[in-house]
Amino acid sequence: MPLQYSHQPINRERWLRELAELLAFPTISAQTQHRRDIEASALWLKEHLTRLGLRHAQILPGPNGGHPSVYADWLLAPGQPTLLFYGHYDVQPVDPLRDWRTPPFQATHVGQNLFARGASDDKGQFLIHLKAIESYLKTVGSLPINVKVWLEGEEEINSPNLPALLDREEARLRADAVLISDTEMLGQGRPSIIYGLRGNLNFELEVGGPRHDLHSGRYGGAVHNPLQALCEMIAGLHNHAGRVTIPGFYDRVREVAHALRQELRCAGPTDEDILTDLDLPQGWGEEGYSLFERMIIRPALTVNGIFGGYVGPGNKSVIPKKAVARLSMRLVPDQNPEEIAHLLRRHFTTVKPPAVTTRLKITGGSPPVIISRRHPALTAASRAIYHTWGVPPVFTRSGGSIPFVPYLQQYFGVPIILLGFGLPDDDIHAPNEKISLPNFFRGIETIIRFLQEYRL
Amino acid sequence: MPLQYSHQPINRERWLRELAELLAFPTISAQTQHRRDIEASALWLKEHLTRLGLRHAQILPGPNGGHPSVYADWLLAPGQPTLLFYGHYDVQPVDPLRDWRTPPFQATHVGQNLFARGASDDKGQFLIHLKAIESYLKTVGSLPINVKVWLEGEEEINSPNLPALLDREEARLRADAVLISDTEMLGQGRPSIIYGLRGNLNFELEVGGPRHDLHSGRYGGAVHNPLQALCEMIAGLHNHAGRVTIPGFYDRVREVAHALRQELRCAGPTDEDILTDLDLPQGWGEEGYSLFERMIIRPALTVNGIFGGYVGPGNKSVIPKKAVARLSMRLVPDQNPEEIAHLLRRHFTTVKPPAVTTRLKITGGSPPVIISRRHPALTAASRAIYHTWGVPPVFTRSGGSIPFVPYLQQYFGVPIILLGFGLPDDDIHAPNEKISLPNFFRGIETIIRFLQEYRL
Repeated sequence: MPLQYSHQPINRERWLRELAELLAFPTISAQTQHRRDIEASALWLKEHLTRLGLRHAQILPGPNGGHPSVYADWLLAPGQPTLLFYGHYDVQPVDPLRDWRTPPFQATHVGQNLFARGASDDKGQFLIHLKAIESYLKTVGSLPINVKVWLEGEEEINSPNLPALLDREEARLRADAVLISDTEMLGQGRPSIIYGLRGNLNFELEVGGPRHDLHSGRYGGAVHNPLQALCEMIAGLHNHAGRVTIPGFYDRVREVAHALRQELRCAGPTDEDILTDLDLPQGWGEEGYSLFERMIIRPALTVNGIFGGYVGPGNKSVIPKKAVARLSMRLVPDQNPEEIAHLLRRHFTTVKPPAVTTRLKITGGSPPVIISRRHPALTAASRAIYHTWGVPPVFTRSGGSIPFVPYLQQYFGVPIILLGFGLPDDDIHAPNEKISLPNFFRGIETIIRFLQEYRL
Repeated sequence: MPLQYSHQPINRERWLRELAELLAFPTISAQTQHRRDIEASALWLKEHLTRLGLRHAQILPGPNGGHPSVYADWLLAPGQPTLLFYGHYDVQPVDPLRDWRTPPFQATHVGQNLFARGASDDKGQFLIHLKAIESYLKTVGSLPINVKVWLEGEEEINSPNLPALLDREEARLRADAVLISDTEMLGQGRPSIIYGLRGNLNFELEVGGPRHDLHSGRYGGAVHNPLQALCEMIAGLHNHAGRVTIPGFYDRVREVAHALRQELRCAGPTDEDILTDLDLPQGWGEEGYSLFERMIIRPALTVNGIFGGYVGPGNKSVIPKKAVARLSMRLVPDQNPEEIAHLLRRHFTTVKPPAVTTRLKITGGSPPVIISRRHPALTAASRAIYHTWGVPPVFTRSGGSIPFVPYLQQYFGVPIILLGFGLPDDDIHAPNEKISLPNFFRGIETIIRFLQEYRL
């Protein structure tokens, strides 16, 4: 019955309209001017959860003035396990805007895809959960297990208020397992369950020079340039073998078993697949590892942005007074963000050119995580996938970070099921993000089936 | 009589009002949106030249759609030499705006200084010329020599249309010597004549990577980052001894005579003077040379601006699709901009990391220049300085470039007198540019005296 409901064209059309409504909120958590959009979106979600038939729908205020999250539950299946559905309704900034072929906050249907910021990361994916729940409640009138739904508003800024929120809401959020659809499959028709995530560490490096901008004709060659010093420090962060040069950086990186590397080689894309997908002639990075391994089992350090000097029209002959870089690291087991931050601080103190000043600001971080594959909830998820897709899921790891996951794992000690329906070409965090609509609908079927399979 | 006129408070007050009017035009030649301000300023200047009593005041259209220049003359001294007064009424961009303590286009009198963009570079300085001419014409009623005044509108963008303009206007502009006040004195009370200027070469380096921005969590460590590659290429442009690493870069750098270095050591500021002036703990640059030598007799390479990736509020986990740097070089005799551009192109082709693409764009350049100190016009200028300031001028060289100078020197083969009244702390090209008003008025006296001294 729920499956039948989820196949009715009239429901499917309405679901796409609802998804478009949700995608229209520019819920960019990194940009304070979108605070009201975030609040409006939270209200929309609260009302939507109520309409589905869930109970106790409410907006949970963000601790420390952070963005709110939205909660609802259905706990009328005594003796059955409780599953926490997690999603995040905040999105990444849309820059560079001019690279978007369609307006980022106006869902646009092209072929088999729906384009908008947040379509895959994560509004489209958590709506899959809600529509599976709806399918049950509107047909059977009840759910086979107990569920809690929690939609966060700060994932894209590294969930800074999560520890405080978990302290306050532990009882409300506690469950036997957590389901998250915020990852992707290995490819079309290759459903995957992620059992490992890289951690991260975000930081900003500011290099200061003269008190004010100087004329580079006059002082060029005699005064060190903050932009050049910044380039030197960034260039020095990798050696010729593509390894990060920060002393101690690799000390805790766990040796990966040969069997696992073998498994990744079979399951994952080849270097050629990745390069073809990205339309790149060549990869880059740490010698001795495949591109896929570099993406998921090896740590990485990336410059996300640099800003300094004059970049307006024409030329300006200037030695700028300061230059700033935004960087981020991806960490693997058992690297620890605090420890790495300490190594980083020490490293920059050592390599700082003497003629400039530097300021290092840590702006966020979360530890890497590995989830045990041997739990009834994961077995149930596997079965649901097999029944819906006709193939068993590939158990694999992801290069991205979901700060929520390690926190929650540490807090509740329950398994986190990372069962995502995104595709590698969804362009999350980039212009022209999209979701595959066949995946959206088949995702709903998968979750309906999972609710059945997880019943004791 | 002219000197007396130039001392009358009523004239001095009016001159400052006129300077303020001229400084109010935001004549930023690098920014196309200021085209009308430039045209309005040219009109103001044409009318001002007429009011002074000069003849043939007119706006000369810029060739190839470039900014106009303003011309006037007074040629009624038969048998006497003809002096061309050169100035430029365009100014540098004002960024960063928030570092200005007063509005950049509203002249503000603080203590002995007048603050505004262009106060020293070059509106305030060429107004010195005009007020010396005015002092003669309003008292004696004539000038001791023939003069031509030419005010350019594209100096700050490297005078791109100067060759075409000289081709068209050669007859009109031809003179026996050229006077330019667009440089600075060595310090308060230390008038200087510049007899050498560094050349320059401006370029933009763009590094391209993936077709669109990628999620750095996902691809970090496996895809080369245009920002990082850019940093590597920039960091590689200098070695540990502060020397530019481009092969062949120093091949034509003229060996400087021991006597000249001795002279610079006596005339110029010490390292300590320069660092105190800039409030910097330490200099930077090519080993084996003093800071002053690095600023004027050694070539230099500077990053003027970098942009790429996400630099808005919060974090964005991105590998950007491209990164751009603006750079400029200062060249010394006998380096040639075209040849250096060729070496640069070859160098970047060699060092380009294989996983990215690069595009080098040359955006301007001018050769270095040396002016003979033995010409009657320079002798006359020396005498005028000695009489007005009580000390002989220091003959020195400057680190900056005035593209007009080498072009004009090459074209007319006449001496260029670089007699400036700026001070080292005028902050030209930076926020809070100013001119010293005592220098402004004493500059007028100096030019009045020079007009007498240059008479045969």
